[in-house]
Amino acid sequence: MQERHSRRAAGSSIGVFDSGVGGLTVLRALMRAMPAESFIYLGDTARLPYGTKSQETVARYAVQAAQALVEYDIKSLVVACNTASSVGLPGIRERFEGLCTFGVIEPGARAACQASASGHIAVIGTEGTIRGGAYQVAIQRCRPDARITAAPTQLFVALAEEGLTEGGIADAVACHYLDALFSEDTAGASTPDTLVLGCTHFPMLAAAIRAAVGPGISIVDSAESTAATVREHLSAIGALNHGEAEHPVRFLATDGAERFARVGGRFLGRPISPEQVELIDLKI
Amino acid sequence: MQERHSRRAAGSSIGVFDSGVGGLTVLRALMRAMPAESFIYLGDTARLPYGTKSQETVARYAVQAAQALVEYDIKSLVVACNTASSVGLPGIRERFEGLCTFGVIEPGARAACQASASGHIAVIGTEGTIRGGAYQVAIQRCRPDARITAAPTQLFVALAEEGLTEGGIADAVACHYLDALFSEDTAGASTPDTLVLGCTHFPMLAAAIRAAVGPGISIVDSAESTAATVREHLSAIGALNHGEAEHPVRFLATDGAERFARVGGRFLGRPISPEQVELIDLKI
Repeated sequence: MQERHSRRAAGSSIGVFDSGVGGLTVLRALMRAMPAESFIYLGDTARLPYGTKSQETVARYAVQAAQALVEYDIKSLVVACNTASSVGLPGIRERFEGLCTFGVIEPGARAACQASASGHIAVIGTEGTIRGGAYQVAIQRCRPDARITAAPTQLFVALAEEGLTEGGIADAVACHYLDALFSEDTAGASTPDTLVLGCTHFPMLAAAIRAAVGPGISIVDSAESTAATVREHLSAIGALNHGEAEHPVRFLATDGAERFARVGGRFLGRPISPEQVELIDLKI
Repeated sequence: MQERHSRRAAGSSIGVFDSGVGGLTVLRALMRAMPAESFIYLGDTARLPYGTKSQETVARYAVQAAQALVEYDIKSLVVACNTASSVGLPGIRERFEGLCTFGVIEPGARAACQASASGHIAVIGTEGTIRGGAYQVAIQRCRPDARITAAPTQLFVALAEEGLTEGGIADAVACHYLDALFSEDTAGASTPDTLVLGCTHFPMLAAAIRAAVGPGISIVDSAESTAATVREHLSAIGALNHGEAEHPVRFLATDGAERFARVGGRFLGRPISPEQVELIDLKI
């Protein structure tokens, strides 16, 4: 088992998985940061969303998704899903010891701690991510004096999937969630100076979120922070490819190739054709 | 096998299932229509939503959910999910021959055909329901001259789950979807006079939907139509209970009892405590 994974650690692709298409914003950042790498992306679309499911269920799904990707020739794994990162990483790391596995929580938390002057940081995510508290724990570990205000903003997910990322509805939903988060409380305490987008869908709503919070707030996109972390790591161990990628990206999904391609293309920022999406089964 | 199902057909409860909490609007209508019956409700919350998944996957999930309910003492089964009704009923009826099984599509389609004067009927639902075309087929079968305009209105699901069923955002989303559906096309053709709420979540947004379409449109709620159909059937075969229900309702879910209780209470119109929700596993 160990030997098998050591062999894989020398593989040629970077595996990326998410419950659906949201992680394609992370893949987009990864491809931009490492244009010579090959990627294999798995969307567990048959079982999405992870964000409203229990921690035990998501942890089990995450190990199954990782298992599917290690069957391919991958040299590292990116859990491009906040919910799976917050509850699934320990199980994946225990099961696949020889594999370098990155989540999106730690890089986002570190970037937020660096960006915040006042130490008051706001975090938004799905219900599962916020309830799980992983961002709160990661920020506190990196900056023990931090004050954290966290809130679920579940509707952003549906807006991003519907492509309603700009206009009156997106603006109204952003204000609905963020006005409360960035208004002074009754005690007149300070408001956050930094906002962590703790869900891979949320970069799609960056303009509406920026309009709602105003220009003075630092917005941390976990996708960008994660891509920078993976690049640093591969560079440090001498495993970063240069030149051109032979097969830049391969898409796997557990259901609905047509929808994956249609909605996913918006998230990736380039068209995906349904024929490019290979359906696989995780019932293993 | 047949014998087993015949015995069950004489059972005491009505089984109801949905991918999540949406079907609780159907349960609510069933309980109102048949106050002396006992119900057992299963929400397949570990695998929701069905609406964006492929037909094959939903059909398989539906048979598994039905299998779980026939293990209890049920006399009939209501598939309280539009997506599962549209693609799962044939498989369920084939597998459980002795069991009276009702979907929500046929009753809703029949009610719409009766309600419409002009024969121009609009149907809204999830992506899966609209793409599957089951309402369109059922309406056409009942009224061959009907003209049908169908559109997915996926965001209504998220709004209902978030409890954002009234106010500016709900109104804006309702107008976003429905203005186009009820405006005259360029050829000046007639607009629909009837609207079918083809998703169990949508009755939660009844006020916003009514405000968007105006007072002249008949709105058909499949939950109410289905409850009336089940009541008629049980009455016709002499299986309708009278008096008081001994155990009015029992809740099963495949994940997240706390969320099921919290969000589900709003859908059912009465509080559900997490302790009332029994977690079961459908991996059978």
